[in-house]
Amino acid sequence: MTLKQNLHAVKVFAPATVTNVSCGFDIMGFALRQPGDVVVLRRSGQAGLTIKKIQGHANSIPFEASKNTAGKAVLSMMKALNLKAGFEMEIYKQMAVGTGLGSSAASAVAAVWALNRFLTRPLSREQLLPFALEGEKLTSGNHVHADNVAACLYGGFVVIRSVAPVEALAIDYPHALHCAILHPKIEIKTADMRNILRQHVPLNDAIQQWGNIAGLVIGLQKGDFELISRSLNDVIIEPIRGKIIPGYQQARQAALQAGALGSGISGSGPSLFALTTSLESARQCGQAMAEVYQKLGLDFDLYLSPVNPHGPQVIQSEE
Amino acid sequence: MTLKQNLHAVKVFAPATVTNVSCGFDIMGFALRQPGDVVVLRRSGQAGLTIKKIQGHANSIPFEASKNTAGKAVLSMMKALNLKAGFEMEIYKQMAVGTGLGSSAASAVAAVWALNRFLTRPLSREQLLPFALEGEKLTSGNHVHADNVAACLYGGFVVIRSVAPVEALAIDYPHALHCAILHPKIEIKTADMRNILRQHVPLNDAIQQWGNIAGLVIGLQKGDFELISRSLNDVIIEPIRGKIIPGYQQARQAALQAGALGSGISGSGPSLFALTTSLESARQCGQAMAEVYQKLGLDFDLYLSPVNPHGPQVIQSEE
Repeated sequence: MTLKQNLHAVKVFAPATVTNVSCGFDIMGFALRQPGDVVVLRRSGQAGLTIKKIQGHANSIPFEASKNTAGKAVLSMMKALNLKAGFEMEIYKQMAVGTGLGSSAASAVAAVWALNRFLTRPLSREQLLPFALEGEKLTSGNHVHADNVAACLYGGFVVIRSVAPVEALAIDYPHALHCAILHPKIEIKTADMRNILRQHVPLNDAIQQWGNIAGLVIGLQKGDFELISRSLNDVIIEPIRGKIIPGYQQARQAALQAGALGSGISGSGPSLFALTTSLESARQCGQAMAEVYQKLGLDFDLYLSPVNPHGPQVIQSEE
Repeated sequence: MTLKQNLHAVKVFAPATVTNVSCGFDIMGFALRQPGDVVVLRRSGQAGLTIKKIQGHANSIPFEASKNTAGKAVLSMMKALNLKAGFEMEIYKQMAVGTGLGSSAASAVAAVWALNRFLTRPLSREQLLPFALEGEKLTSGNHVHADNVAACLYGGFVVIRSVAPVEALAIDYPHALHCAILHPKIEIKTADMRNILRQHVPLNDAIQQWGNIAGLVIGLQKGDFELISRSLNDVIIEPIRGKIIPGYQQARQAALQAGALGSGISGSGPSLFALTTSLESARQCGQAMAEVYQKLGLDFDLYLSPVNPHGPQVIQSEE
């Protein structure tokens, strides 16, 4: 594989993602317009990859390329394509790690999207997916999570049909969908949120869950908001995880009363999402959730965003 | 509700149904063109409902209307609509009870469809569903199964999003789909097939299953045969039930090798299905499955059928 000779640097934005989406634990996700991470990839005289800068929410994010999710993703792609060139990377993180918004996935996707732009024959999203996932393996170990990475890379709504081999499916959805995200500023470790889950689930709950998954997919594809709303119900994971996140039940109820189609935990939390049919409705639901946290005296960030159909986007390139 | 004065008798065919469809345990089903049951409903001078005749596979099917699935369905509909008239019913069963092909559902659906034809303002399929389900409650007790009844009543492919309240969703599917059904003539009780299931399932298996459910729904709606094929995989139920049905694993493998998109247990068995993209392919898969049972020396019925988009159909009416 050869590189474009006249390209010097590429700056890419890749979006935050909401995964699980209530009933779709580990198999569903969608991309936001904001927040997101920005990665700059610049040609360098020195072979290999050097991370020069990590800005914003940078605590505990390693500079060593092979231990950094974005770095690892780029290195695995360089190796597979036998690229001998040298690159420098800058990472501008707009969200902290451990928010439940796919922070590490966004950096990894932005990085491979940037490297892809340097290729004379760029790869497809499907081809890029395994490389972006290499970064994710650093944080989640053997338990590969493709949901954040795929939603970030493909944009819109995705389903992970299978993780081994990985198969992500982009699905149609009504473009009126918007989202309010409330990120309570409390620290919850992804690993802890996974460890509290029961390793076995009642068959009857699983049946209820897969009815809702089918309903959600059909509702999204047909643009049936009422069906989407009825299906956004998790009887297995959120009842357990919700107990760990202060204010969760109240904020969820407040969002539903303010008109949300559904509301739940984004990823493994602590961020909460409320899915709505307009930006105005997202604003109202966000406000309702915010009031719950204001009363609790807990600090938070609030984001309003349409579902993002694009995935990563080049925002600047230098020749 | 009033009855048409000039209608004397209606004869209705309602189709057999394949439910579970591998990954969609308790939430998915589709209708066949054949086999199926036929019900005749005829006006009578005597108030109430009298079952006059049950023909074919009639062992153990009660004549007492309130204990017969078709009778109970009609009685519940007559009661709800406050119909004071009298009817006689004849039931022509083309399949035995306990085949896994929704025999009792077919009779109940044919019966309510026939009664509906007598109404001056007929009900919709959605409105008929609860009445047809009343019959099913006789055989499955409190555990309401809506999958056979909904697939039979709506035709095509259906998803049961919820059982309480019942919500059935008809979904698009590629009309090239055909099916081979092999019914081994062995007796397996539905209750036994349910009792051998584990009441808890591993979370990781459940996740794999809901990925496949989403994949199957997307594949059906988009007409993506390869996606349908990859998704037709059950990691929870069939591995257990398959052990009870002699020849199951071999027949399934034979069908897959003969070109089936997928193959599994219909309902709670013992019937097996193979889903294909043409009638010719269904014939080849049926032949491959049949050879397995011939070698085992087990008697069987074999049916080839397109997926049936119509549901029940009036085949005769007398004024």
